[in-house]
This record gives sequence, structure tokens and C-alpha cells, in this order.
Amino acid sequence: MSMQRIGLAGYGTVGRALARQLTEESGRYRRELGVDLRLSHIFDRSYGNKDRSFLPPDVSFSDDLESLLAQDVDILVEVLGGEQPADKLIRATLERGRSVVTANKFLMARHGPLYLRLASMRGAFLGFEAAVAGGIPVLRALRRSLFSDRIVGLSGILNATCNFILCEMAASGADYHQAVSRAQELGYAEADPSLDVSGRDAADKLGILSALCFGVWPAPETVPVQGIESLEAVDFRYARQLGYAIRLLASGSLEEESGRPRLRVNPFMVAQDLPLAKIEGEVNAVKIEGRRLGSTVLSGPGAGGAATAVSAASDVLNAALWRAGNGSFYAAPYLMADKGARPADASREVYPFYLRFVVRDRTGILAALAGILHRHGINIHSVVQEAWDDPVDLPFVITIDPTSFASVEEAVAEMAQLDFHSRPPLALPILE
Amino acid sequence: MSMQRIGLAGYGTVGRALARQLTEESGRYRRELGVDLRLSHIFDRSYGNKDRSFLPPDVSFSDDLESLLAQDVDILVEVLGGEQPADKLIRATLERGRSVVTANKFLMARHGPLYLRLASMRGAFLGFEAAVAGGIPVLRALRRSLFSDRIVGLSGILNATCNFILCEMAASGADYHQAVSRAQELGYAEADPSLDVSGRDAADKLGILSALCFGVWPAPETVPVQGIESLEAVDFRYARQLGYAIRLLASGSLEEESGRPRLRVNPFMVAQDLPLAKIEGEVNAVKIEGRRLGSTVLSGPGAGGAATAVSAASDVLNAALWRAGNGSFYAAPYLMADKGARPADASREVYPFYLRFVVRDRTGILAALAGILHRHGINIHSVVQEAWDDPVDLPFVITIDPTSFASVEEAVAEMAQLDFHSRPPLALPILE
Repeated sequence: MSMQRIGLAGYGTVGRALARQLTEESGRYRRELGVDLRLSHIFDRSYGNKDRSFLPPDVSFSDDLESLLAQDVDILVEVLGGEQPADKLIRATLERGRSVVTANKFLMARHGPLYLRLASMRGAFLGFEAAVAGGIPVLRALRRSLFSDRIVGLSGILNATCNFILCEMAASGADYHQAVSRAQELGYAEADPSLDVSGRDAADKLGILSALCFGVWPAPETVPVQGIESLEAVDFRYARQLGYAIRLLASGSLEEESGRPRLRVNPFMVAQDLPLAKIEGEVNAVKIEGRRLGSTVLSGPGAGGAATAVSAASDVLNAALWRAGNGSFYAAPYLMADKGARPADASREVYPFYLRFVVRDRTGILAALAGILHRHGINIHSVVQEAWDDPVDLPFVITIDPTSFASVEEAVAEMAQLDFHSRPPLALPILE
Repeated sequence: MSMQRIGLAGYGTVGRALARQLTEESGRYRRELGVDLRLSHIFDRSYGNKDRSFLPPDVSFSDDLESLLAQDVDILVEVLGGEQPADKLIRATLERGRSVVTANKFLMARHGPLYLRLASMRGAFLGFEAAVAGGIPVLRALRRSLFSDRIVGLSGILNATCNFILCEMAASGADYHQAVSRAQELGYAEADPSLDVSGRDAADKLGILSALCFGVWPAPETVPVQGIESLEAVDFRYARQLGYAIRLLASGSLEEESGRPRLRVNPFMVAQDLPLAKIEGEVNAVKIEGRRLGSTVLSGPGAGGAATAVSAASDVLNAALWRAGNGSFYAAPYLMADKGARPADASREVYPFYLRFVVRDRTGILAALAGILHRHGINIHSVVQEAWDDPVDLPFVITIDPTSFASVEEAVAEMAQLDFHSRPPLALPILE
């Protein structure tokens, strides 16, 4: 049984949960898996008063990156997050032929192909299960279990903070800012929630999934992203009335002609009987569609240190088993078959849409909007207006037949120019 | 790139789907995975008029088992089902150090430890992902992704036929026999559905999951099993009224004191907001609870040749990658840490229960039943009776506070002796 020295970079929520897990389970890992893991070094910029009571006494602590770089660990776990010094640490470790386990979706989405080439060249293991969907084992499922099929579509609830906020707005009637505050109180949202609510965090995770499903690592700016900031309480009332739940979905679908995926992060109106509409609260879920398999849905805790730590710890074990000749590294050689960074044009995707307007009531509004839709060749499916007695902020909804994102965006931009809006119009695709 | 000869035993629904998939995708497997698979031999007892048009011309067919045994294939795929000749074929192939991929839950539940020891001794790969939950990659998730955590519970909808029948009864008000006929018409149930509806098929799958989650391969007779045959239309009406869905669950939970699992297959009343209550139709789902992770739910197609074939094809690829030094075999060495065949005593499991009676109306019935419950120390939670005008077949329900299976079984056996029943009483555990 070979001993593996573990270096841990980052001693925040995930780092502490991981350190505790590796310590508590080390006997079982030795006994049942034949893997002897020794947590030897922890790096954190400010580990000062964080709990270390559960750690073995011989773990060394440092707030100096160079000192961690100087250590000869077998497996480095990076849970610092953000760009630097995480990037420098990952590269230096892989360069040396040592294995890396990371939860860093930001870096994997941007430098994944480079890290994987480096790992492959130097004979190192690179695990990043913890970077996507917390404790849900979706990456390994894709690369070792569903890979015999052709993946044609995926859609996921990849940001637990957003899902909590959306469910809170639906359940309580709260407006967006109230729901964000509630999420912050409960520790589900950061003080600055912009990376989550803008959809950018979900887009990074979608990029990683795209690589595993479709062989395309998209450049971040090539994925259209709409966040949840423009949603209003009224949208949730209409959603319920029309039989939908609002979910922020990261979606990818294979465009047959080009063999490339259409990728997008967007709030969707999801028919209440679909599996993703039933995913409630701070949970993640990924639906994967295979050409032969049909749909498989994986769901589980998407936030919280413990769940993410389980994924990272499993990657640490896989790194150790791989070193001992009994593991798998789903990156090499076939993630190298990289089709580049350019996804297909997602603006050609076609959905029915929900268009919501809040207007100052007067005559001719519907005629003006219907005229614009008509000129863009868009068919109205229904017009819905709840009883309302405020003539200044009068909300109503037009649903339209399946139309491309591009056409809807053009039509909505034109409609937004009209002078009767008291809020900007909102368009959401509908998933039936 | 090394070429792998594949032998296929069984050319029924799964076998044909697999043969087609391996043929259609062979170019991609070579290109993207560096795996060159050649389907060389197919054995079937009666492949006479089954479609072979999509196969390469050099595949040889035989209805003679000895002729398949004489072939020197690298990977044997066994989708014959049943006991013999599948068992003989698997043993002979592993003995020779060749890899086996099987969908045979019956054999894996009974001889899994033996096959795994044989595989380990002879340096062969043994894949059985297709034996549990069709296309859902639950076995690999357990042994490679969730294994860093301690699994404390699992519950699964593992028989798609039963789930279809239960959903059909709930949706249409059909009685049990009508729902079975409907399932047979649609091809979801066999002419003789007894292995499915009795819960025995689910119990075999539970046994395999128990091995991976808890290290116990239960002897089949040690798992208490109740099927769905005793359910009546009235149970679905009461279920709806009380806020439950009826699901046949295979459940396992770790008993802390003994370190062994309590295992059981039983129809449950499942609160409508729980994830397993939302799994509709011919679908499988597995909920896994980790000590740190919380719950993860995997769901997907549980029946049909194509989905099961995807799991088998993935195992074939993993066998080939493993042979090439880039695969993982989650059996060796740590499934060898086998705690034996004895699960914990499941009769001590405690649930609230639903007790349903159908009686010939007269006075004193409730007093008699309540008296028996009282003598067994069981608290009544509620008594529910829908409006009903038939004094001969009068159905009503008593729900009771959490009680052990053992106590409920004793009390119900005593109640069943009373002379006013027009049908035998039914007890179902409730999952809140």
C-alpha cells in the first residue's frame, strides 16, 4: 500500500469539510480501498481562527504559497476558487507530474484543455468532479457510463443559489430583492451575489459539461447568458396560472448539421410536470439526453461544503487508485479530441416564448405589440391578463408559437422602444 | 490500438439493441476513445428470423453454446437472462481470464461474490452496470463517485413494470388486473409478470446495490419482499386523499450498531412532495443517502432494450479501456471486503403505517380493531373513511404512529382472524 501525501489549498467551507472527511475516513480508505492518504500541508491566506481541532497533529499550515509549492505532495487539492493564485498552483503541480483535484469551475471553463494536455503530457491525474453540480457525480457518469451513447442534449439547474431564489419567489410572492436577502440570511447567497444571479457561474459549468458531452470547450464569451435579475413577482403569478415553474437552465443541444452544440444559460418557463420543474430549493439537477438512452436525470445537493467535499474526496481516491494502477482517468486520451472553442449559433434555437409587459394603460397597446409581432412573422398563441386595478403598472402576458431566439430578441427590442412601458418587457423561452 | 473481439450471448431486445449500437458507433469508439471493438460471434437459441440486416457480414451466428465457448473472444456480453446456460458461460469465460459484461441481476444477486473473486484471480474485468436500473449509471456512481462518503441509506424504484402498473392504477382508477393487462398490451410486462409484480426482481437488484453500498451480498431469502398484487383501486383513492403516491421501493438503511443494512422490498405510501413520489411511469430511480452528502437521486429509463444496451456497451468500453491500462474496474480489490450474506433484522424498522380494511358493515368493528392495536401498544393516528354506500364491501383506513414492521405484522395477523373482513387487511409503511 503506497502512501499518498495530500496538499490542500484553501481552508474555507469546502476545504475544512474535506480535511475533516479525509481525517475521519482514513482508516476505512486504508482498509477497504487499500489507499493510504496523509493530509500533510494546508495553505490558506487566513486560516487564523478556523477550526483545526479535528486534524492530526502533524499537518503543517502555511499562508505562504511558495512554501506549499516547495512541498512535494502527491495530490494537490485546490479549493481556493477564483483565478490567482489557484491557476499558478495548478500549473506548477501538473508540470511536476503530480495530480490535481480542483473545484474551480472558473479556471476549468477557461483553461481546461490546457490543464488536461499538461496532465496528459506529465502523466498526472486531473480531477474536477467538484467543479460542476456539487455532490452530483455527473462528470464521471458522462465520461464512463453514458459515453457509449451519443449525447444529444443536456439541461441543468447548475446554480443552487438561483434555484433557491426562484423557488422562494414562487412560494412566498416575494420580489427579487427580498428573495436575494432571504438567500443571504440563510447563507445560500454571497454578499455580492452577481456571479450567481447573472448566470455566469452556471455558464462556466455548462462550458465544462459541453466539453464532456460534445467535445467543445466554449470560449466563455460565446455562450449567451441571461440571469434572473429581471424577473418580477408578477412573472411567478403568471407562471403558476399557465402551469409553469421558472428555472434558470443551462442548456446544450447538438446541432446535427455542424456536430456542434447550441449552448445557452437562460431563465425558462418549465412545464410543471417536467422533472426539472420539480427540483426545489438549493438543489442542482442535470438532465442528459442520449440518442438511444432517452433522458437520465441526476439531482442532489448543489451547494454546501460537505457535498462538494465528497466529490473532491472521491477524486482524491480516484487519483490514488489511478496511481496504483486501478483507477480511471477520464481525461486521457480522449478529451484531447477537442473540437475547439466555437459552439453552434444558439440564436437559431426555437421555443415558444412568454412575453411579459408592464404598461401604463391606454388604448392601442395590444394593437401596437401585435403589429410588431406580425411584422416579424411571429404567431400569437394566447394573451393573458389577470384581474388588476392599477392602471399605471398593468401587467399582461403574450405567449407566442415556436420562434427563434434571434427573432424574439429583435421583436422585443423594437417593442421596448414604444412609450407605454412602465418596466422593460421580458421574454422567456417555454419548455413544454 | 488493440482490437477487442466481442462475443454476444442473447439476441433478444437488449442483444439486438447492443449489436446495433456497437456496429453503428464503432467508428466513433475508434476515433474518440482509441478502442477497436469487433462483434465477432452471436449466440442465441432462436435467432432465426430476428433482424440482422445492420450487422457487418463477418459476424458468425450460432445456436450452439459449445461453439460460443470454443471461440476465443476478449469480452463476452451475456444478455440471455435466467440461470442456465448464462451461469456456465460466465464462469467459463472468467476462468479463461476473459472479460464479462452481464445484465443478469438474478445471477449477480446469487453468485456475485464468486464471479468477482474469479474475475480478480484471473485478471478479468466483470461489468454488471446493466443488471441494475437499466440505463441509470448507479453502480459506477456508487463505486467511483460516492464511495468517499459513508452510504447510510438507499431507496429505489427498481422495477419499471411495477411503477407503470402503480401509476396506471393511480391515474385511471383501474384495478390491479386491468392495469397488468394494460402493461402487457404496451409491452411493459411479460406474459407471466410474477417475477416483477412479486418484488423478487427488485429484491435481486437491491441485493447488488447492498453489496456496493454496504458490503453485504444478502442471500436472496434474507430480504423480506412484499409485491404489489394485494393493492386495490381503493388504496389509490385513499392515497390521493391522504397526500401519498404508492411506490414499490427497494430500501436499505445502515444499522449503526451492527454496521449491516436493513433491506426490504415493499410497496410504500410516499408523501407526494418526496422525489420518489414524482417518478412516473416505466422509469427507475435510486435515491442514495450519504452521511455527508445528503441525498442524491438518479433517475432514468428502467426498461427497454436501448437503455440497458447503453449500460452494457459502456461496460464493454470500460473493459476494453481497462485492458489497455486506462480503465477502472470497481470490483477489485475492494469489493472483496465482503461482509457476508447476512443483513440486519429488517423487522425492527419503524415507520408510520397505513392499514386498510374492507369489511361487511356491522357494529363493533372499529372497537375490535382498536382493541388489538392497543394490546400491541400501537397508537392510532387517524381513522379515514370515504363516503360509501355498499354495506358489504366497506373500505376504511386506520393510520398508526411509527411502529416496527414486526409489531404491525403481528397485529395485522391477529386482526385478519376476525370474521367481518370481506378482503384481507393490508398494511403499507408510510414515507413522510
